Amino acid sequence: MDKLNLPKQVLIREVGPRDGLQNVAEYVKSADKVQLIELLAASGLRDIEVTSFVHPKAVPQMRDAEVVLGMLPPWSEIEISSLALNLKGAHRGVTAGAKNLVTSISVSESHSRHNVNRSREEAIIDLLNMAELCKAYDISLRASVSVVFGCPYDGKIALTETAYVIERMLESGIREISLADTAGLGNPQQVYQICTEMRREFPEGMFALHIHDTRGLGVANVLAGLQAGIQIVETSIGGLGGCPFIPNAAGNVATEDVVYMLQEMGIETGVDLSKLLEAGNFLSGVLGRTLSSKQLGLCKIR
Amino acid sequence: MDKLNLPKQVLIREVGPRDGLQNVAEYVKSADKVQLIELLAASGLRDIEVTSFVHPKAVPQMRDAEVVLGMLPPWSEIEISSLALNLKGAHRGVTAGAKNLVTSISVSESHSRHNVNRSREEAIIDLLNMAELCKAYDISLRASVSVVFGCPYDGKIALTETAYVIERMLESGIREISLADTAGLGNPQQVYQICTEMRREFPEGMFALHIHDTRGLGVANVLAGLQAGIQIVETSIGGLGGCPFIPNAAGNVATEDVVYMLQEMGIETGVDLSKLLEAGNFLSGVLGRTLSSKQLGLCKIR
Repeated sequence: MDKLNLPKQVLIREVGPRDGLQNVAEYVKSADKVQLIELLAASGLRDIEVTSFVHPKAVPQMRDAEVVLGMLPPWSEIEISSLALNLKGAHRGVTAGAKNLVTSISVSESHSRHNVNRSREEAIIDLLNMAELCKAYDISLRASVSVVFGCPYDGKIALTETAYVIERMLESGIREISLADTAGLGNPQQVYQICTEMRREFPEGMFALHIHDTRGLGVANVLAGLQAGIQIVETSIGGLGGCPFIPNAAGNVATEDVVYMLQEMGIETGVDLSKLLEAGNFLSGVLGRTLSSKQLGLCKIR
Repeated sequence: MDKLNLPKQVLIREVGPRDGLQNVAEYVKSADKVQLIELLAASGLRDIEVTSFVHPKAVPQMRDAEVVLGMLPPWSEIEISSLALNLKGAHRGVTAGAKNLVTSISVSESHSRHNVNRSREEAIIDLLNMAELCKAYDISLRASVSVVFGCPYDGKIALTETAYVIERMLESGIREISLADTAGLGNPQQVYQICTEMRREFPEGMFALHIHDTRGLGVANVLAGLQAGIQIVETSIGGLGGCPFIPNAAGNVATEDVVYMLQEMGIETGVDLSKLLEAGNFLSGVLGRTLSSKQLGLCKIR
């Protein structure tokens, strides 16, 4: 084989306004959130996770979910989605006029209890209710499987467990499923194998990859996922997410680093890197600190 | 294919004491350099580039090449090498008792003039002289081809140019050739293609990959090289190299990040990651600043 087997086109799903900002302690004003989302959209991103309908006490940063969603322009060409981790959150989303909701189920029991304070099975039951609700209101629902590539509490995850969760998601009518390396414990060989096996086992599923860069393998894991046929990658502007107060401990893989790699390899994303960096620099200004992506670091050199 | 095609074993060639430190402005004492090299050896590294016989005015940091080489223990199981960019440097190496020398030729004319102030052809003629000298003194000589994956002055490099330089190296009797992404301009698809083609065109060559992480693709480029059959990777402790005074502008790909990836994928390197981090932390202490590798960043969290 003379070339790595890679797709011609990749959809970048920007999760920074939700997954990135939810880890930021200082409150970011709704207007700044909206401006960030508008800058991201202006760079050519066509799929943005903008907020989370989560209890304001659990994640105070997302307490303005309704406000942010209400302030956004009525884009027809951009998929705007919001997270809801339970039926109550989904109801809030419906009331706020959300068109696309995302939910998440931890494949590991311990992570489920730590993250949403309930068992995996309880989360699955709630998923079925959420799916019903969304159907009734003609809202699209996607789902993410958390800690597929390793759990900070339970360690390695058996693939049969991941397959079980995916099966239940598909049964509920969900088609778009994101495999998430929530703790950044994945490696390229494993990402390739898991993505390959899940795509083969569930050809009716449309799989995305959600990658964190905690241990420096983020971009390599994305590469491995693409080689396994994944064509949707979830990334966060500025590499925001994870634990932002510790030097080098990046969270999500940075959108601009992934877009740079894809661009260099001739893979189409529709995203303009220089405009994306404007969004990153705006966010850096709002937060008053340097963000961890390599491309933003290079901005300072140019 | 159910797995990425990767080697079972990889030789990590540590170039930090030479390629990393030569970019550090503040002078590092010879004793500290030696202690760093000893810590690197203690981690299990079996191939270390320790210094450079370069003019002290050009690279003041390497002015103690003879001293450092003389202070090292007489390791039999570790390959200790030194850089020499011309015949004069090679003579210094011979006199200092070097057993392994490395040289480098820029495939791009402009980079050759910027880097060593002479044409590529002049460098090749000097290489032939160096090869003769090394043969006479029973010293092994390796060579590196610089800016194979892109030149900051000349842009893209035609593969025929790289092949020409490799051919001249092989003619001189050199077998071990490192393909270097000196400016960090490579991408995984290109690394895979160039490594594949050069290995096919020159089956008598033993190719290594020298990767910089300037634009965040370092680890992914290493992965692509391994998929192309490369089994020797040149890395630098702490990601030192490049431009150390600009935040996020890492130089070489960090040894500990590559070792972590290989370890997680079950590829043997013989290196103990925790001992490697001790070497990184020692270096960080000597330089009085945080180094850019993800694994060292995580040390602070643990």
